[in-house]
Parts: sequence; C-alpha cells; structure tokens
Amino acid sequence: MPVPLLYADTSHSADQLYFCRLYVPDPFIAFAVSGKKYGVFNRLEFGRARKESALDVVLPLEPLLDQAKSRWPGRKPGPAEIIALLAAEHRFDELVVPEEFPAGLADRLRAHGLAVTVAEGAFFPEREIKTAAEAAAVREGNRCAAAGIAAAERILRASRIRGGRLFWRGSVLTSERLKVAIETACLEAGAISLDTIAAGGDQACDPHARGTGPLRPGELIIVDVFPRVNRTGYHGDMTRTFLKGRASEAQRALVAAVRSAQKLALRHIRAGVPGRDVHGQVVAHFESLGYKTGQDAGGSTGFFHGTGHGLGLEVHEPPRIGVTVETPLKAGAVVTVEPGLYYPGLGACRIEDVVQVTAAAPKMLSRYAYEWELR
Amino acid sequence: MPVPLLYADTSHSADQLYFCRLYVPDPFIAFAVSGKKYGVFNRLEFGRARKESALDVVLPLEPLLDQAKSRWPGRKPGPAEIIALLAAEHRFDELVVPEEFPAGLADRLRAHGLAVTVAEGAFFPEREIKTAAEAAAVREGNRCAAAGIAAAERILRASRIRGGRLFWRGSVLTSERLKVAIETACLEAGAISLDTIAAGGDQACDPHARGTGPLRPGELIIVDVFPRVNRTGYHGDMTRTFLKGRASEAQRALVAAVRSAQKLALRHIRAGVPGRDVHGQVVAHFESLGYKTGQDAGGSTGFFHGTGHGLGLEVHEPPRIGVTVETPLKAGAVVTVEPGLYYPGLGACRIEDVVQVTAAAPKMLSRYAYEWELR
Repeated sequence: MPVPLLYADTSHSADQLYFCRLYVPDPFIAFAVSGKKYGVFNRLEFGRARKESALDVVLPLEPLLDQAKSRWPGRKPGPAEIIALLAAEHRFDELVVPEEFPAGLADRLRAHGLAVTVAEGAFFPEREIKTAAEAAAVREGNRCAAAGIAAAERILRASRIRGGRLFWRGSVLTSERLKVAIETACLEAGAISLDTIAAGGDQACDPHARGTGPLRPGELIIVDVFPRVNRTGYHGDMTRTFLKGRASEAQRALVAAVRSAQKLALRHIRAGVPGRDVHGQVVAHFESLGYKTGQDAGGSTGFFHGTGHGLGLEVHEPPRIGVTVETPLKAGAVVTVEPGLYYPGLGACRIEDVVQVTAAAPKMLSRYAYEWELR
Repeated sequence: MPVPLLYADTSHSADQLYFCRLYVPDPFIAFAVSGKKYGVFNRLEFGRARKESALDVVLPLEPLLDQAKSRWPGRKPGPAEIIALLAAEHRFDELVVPEEFPAGLADRLRAHGLAVTVAEGAFFPEREIKTAAEAAAVREGNRCAAAGIAAAERILRASRIRGGRLFWRGSVLTSERLKVAIETACLEAGAISLDTIAAGGDQACDPHARGTGPLRPGELIIVDVFPRVNRTGYHGDMTRTFLKGRASEAQRALVAAVRSAQKLALRHIRAGVPGRDVHGQVVAHFESLGYKTGQDAGGSTGFFHGTGHGLGLEVHEPPRIGVTVETPLKAGAVVTVEPGLYYPGLGACRIEDVVQVTAAAPKMLSRYAYEWELR
C-alpha cells in the first residue's frame, strides 16, 4: 500500500488542513503509516503542533535535517531528503500524493528511488461527507456571510436616491464602499471575506465580476459573500439580490423566477439523486417560464452556470450540481443552491443558500430573509 | 529551448500574476513562445483577459476543448490535452515549469510525450528587481499597513488601564479586537490583511504567534501587518512594538537596542553587500549590548530569525538577509529590515520597515513614527 503524503501549507492546501487540523503558514511534511498520522515541524511550530494538531506523532524537523546533512554531505537537504530518511525508517518506498503536489519535489523523490503516484480525483474522498461539527462550522460561516449581507442591506436602505445615483453618508455609494462594509462586518463576525461580489446592473450579468464604480437606483444588485471562518477554516457562501427604489415588472418576474427555481431545487435535493437531475429541474423551470439560455455578442445569457457546488474547507469542492454530474448526491454532503438569471439590459439575479443533503428534505445551513426591493 | 509554462490561478501563484497581470481565481494555462506571451481562458474570463492582461495573445479555451474531444474521443479533456495541442501547433516538445507546478499535470504531460523540466530556484529571477511602478505598489502597500498600525495605536492610546487590563469602548481590549480594527483600517485603505499579528507579553516571544486574549498594560505589544493591495496584488509589511502605560528600564533598553540595530542594518544595506554581512552587523550589535541568543526549555530566545526578506507579490520572496546568505544584494531589490529580540518574562520587540536597495543609501518605502510608550 503506498503511503499517503502531503507537502503543503494550510493556507494553500485544504487537504493539509483537513489532515492536520492546524494552521501552519509554511509548507511541511505530513503522512500516514499503519493507521497513524505523522507531521514534521520546525522549532517555530513544533510546540503548537504537539498541543493543537490532530496528528498522532509530531516529529521535530531539526534532528532530521542534521541526519540528512551527514547522510548526503555537501548537499543542502530539503523536504525530499527528509522524506527519504522517513521512508527508510518507516520502511516504505511507495507514496501517493495529491494532484497539486509540487512537481519539483515529486521528481526529487523519484530520484531518491521512491515510487510516487499521483492520486486520481479527490485525495481524501471522505471530505465530501461532513460531520456534525463540520456542518456546524459551515453554518457559522453562513452566520458571518449573513452579517456581511445584512451590512449591505442596511446601507442600501439608508442610502438616498439623487440624480440617478445612490448617496450614503454624504457621498456616492459604490460597489467598492459596499464591499468594504460587507468585509468589515465579516471581520467583526470572525471571518475573512475575499473576492466579495457587490455588482449592479449589467456588471452583475458576468457572474465573476466583483463590481466597480457607482451603484444605481432601480438596478438589480447581486451581493455574494463567501467568508472563511478564522477559527476553523470552513466557509459560508450566500447570495442575495437587492434593488434600491422601485423595481420594474420584468425585474420582479426575474427575481420571482429565480426564487421559485431555488425552492424547486431544494425540493429535489436528497441522497441518491444525481446532481444533473436537480440541475435539469431548474433548467426546465426557467424554460417553462420563458427564460431562455444562450449566447449573444456580449457573451452568455440566461442560466449558464451550475445549480450548486460543495462547500467546506474550500469554497468550491465536490460534489457539483450541474448538467454533466451523473454521481448521486450523498447523505452528509454540504452544497450551495444558487440558480441565477443574467440578461444584460434587464439585469441579473442570483439567490444562494447552503444545505446538507439527507435521505429526506435537506437541512438548511444558511438563513437570511428574501426581501429585496428596498424603497 | 524549453518553453516556460504555468498552470495556476493568480491567488495561489505570484508567478502567474507576474506573467499575466490579471486576477483570475481559477487555474489557467499561460506560456511564452518566440518572445510572445500566451494565455488560454474560458468564456467567463476571455473578454477581461483580452482587455486587461499583459499577454500578447489571448486564446479562447472552448475551441481547444472541442479539438481535444475529437483528437482523443472518449476521454474527458483537461489541461494536459490542451497543452499537448498547443505544443503541436507551436512546434515545441520541451517545457520548463516552476517547482510548485502540479505533479499530476506534469505526469500527464510526460505521458503525452512532452519533456517536462522543473526549474531550479526562481521561475522568473527578474521578479527580484522591482521597477519604479512595483516599488510604488509596495509603498502603497505600506501606506495600507501604516493605516492598520495607526488604528492599533489610536485604540491603545484611547484605552484605559483598570485592574491589570486594558478597556476600550467599555470592554476588555483583546488581541482579537485590535486585529479586527487593524484589518478594517486596511480594508478601508484598499488592501486585505491576513494573519495580522497583535501579540503582547510572552505570546509575542514566538514570532509566529498572532496573539489571543486580553492585552495588558506594561507589556510590549508587537503589531505586524502585511496587507496585499487589492488593485495590484503587491504587499506592504510593517511592524511596530507598543506598550500601554509606563515601560520598565529593561523594556526601554530592549526597544532602544532593536531600533539602533535597525538603523545599523539600514546603513549597511546597499547593492553588492551580501545579506549575511548585514545580518552579521545586527547580530554583533546585539551581542555588544549584552543581548544573547540561545535556547532555553521554552524555545529560542534573543535574535533568532533573519534580518529581512524580499517583498512584492509575495510576503516572503527572494532575496533573504540572513546568516547563510552569500549572494550580494542587487540594486532594485525590495527588502524588509526587521531585527527583533525575544525574551519570555521581559517581552519582545520587533521593528520593521521596507526599503529598495540602491548603489548608495537604500530608499525608504515605508513610513510610520517610532513612538511606542503610550501613556
């Protein structure tokens, strides 16, 4: 049996954080032999790793470095040499590493005579099924996301409409100002929100656009917040669409279609149902209401992204709920449910919540009102 | 000549951001052939990449995916197949990739008959020399860092001492509250501050500890802020050490030693001087003042980290200023200058600024006062 091995820091690698349950900013070695989890840490991290990590054995790096120096004199020892020593001591010569393992280190390990296989697909497939504690951590992430969305709603409500613009605290309300307020609220709630979206009008018709410049009355404003909780590393992910002023009938119909599509998806999500079946329900619903999906000169319009994605230590992780996903949803998976419609000229709406899949109706892990037309 | 190739998103890879000058949250292919820079983007990113990136040629992903599907029917095409197609079209069969290139993709490229070499050391060594625009971006990062430090100083000044604790706005002042205030100030200045340090007393004696729980009067409090500017991706990195109340003579001597060490280092930093010479000056200075470096039961004490490190798109990048660094500093490099002393029982002090190396005195890229004893 090849030994699973990681070399990463926990900011870049959710697998490393999942395995060790310890925040470490610099890359370190971790592996599992005979059912025990090992980690190697330098002087700066050793004490904390022993106290706080989920590892069974915490090894100090420095003696291994000394050993490597005498074993390979004249060479500056690095992680490859340390791993070679550990392999000799623990009698393994086959490793399995994740897709994102550094190619340079993989080559050096092979030069040390170790067989390195890269795992196909997820390195820890069990990450897809969330424990009760993990579901609670995602719920906490959504409490932080809701704090951000609430900050945006408060500001939109408090803004005044003047000359086709919104004014808040004496100056023009922009996407940038709204994002600072959202991210500040997340910070105060105990989470960090990166790449927050607060985009209005046609900008919001590109689901990746984060929003820039003045926000305007009468336009649909998408607010999408996916903060990481400082204490646990788990994420929330919520979206609401607001409009300041009076919506048109077409805007009201658009928002109603998205909300009813979300409710429909929630009714179809349960263990055993393939993601594409849930997605297909949403697609058919939009079509039945006359909302077409297609391409025009400016890009895609209608509903052209997935219905949802897994959420946990990463913002996007398995499973997906989309057109090509044949795998049945598993009980315990945590997924977003986020249909959207995007039509330049009219505007865009996306509404996103998070649920845990069960054998029956899914369990809601996010909570925020759906009122959106703010006078 | 092997073709340099990247496959990464720009949040995880500073090299990718440096090469393309475009923020892209998902991994994409970029490479250079015959002096031209190419990038491959999906529908969501294509328009923005054409408008905003520093690439010479922006290719759409979807036609390449279609081509790969007919070239390798029955296989789900991924980046390896796209790169194989591009290699055939542009007539190359040797690639050079960075150390952190994904091992799985490297293996699949080799299976496609491409020779993949992993670069030794920096992938873009020219990143070490900062242009005037890059130096200005770091200066802007330090303006944001200074906004964070100023927020901390304001709160410490406004706090009241009561029963061995600090009170601010009616409740106990903690490291956590100070960090939220620092990070909020950075957000408002246009940058994101992750892993902010606001650690007091013995906690600060571990240079990696971020600080937790109540801050106390009469203890040295290290505030270390290294925000990333949203607009450019460049960082600032500044540290100040504060004390609320009245310092002891030993604390005053400690802070004076660190500040004089920093001034000494600044006098020795110039093009052509090896990092270890600058570091050696700091070590000798601390020794001459009687500040010993060593180990006790709790860990390392004294001055046991480097004097500085390169700063740019990453918080830590080449060059280093430390005990083993023989390479001479190059004109145009941007480095931190951050001596520190750490003695559990007495406390810790670190003072950090950022400079650009020149043939003469270094150019300061950070600015903040050095007043530290806050009554």
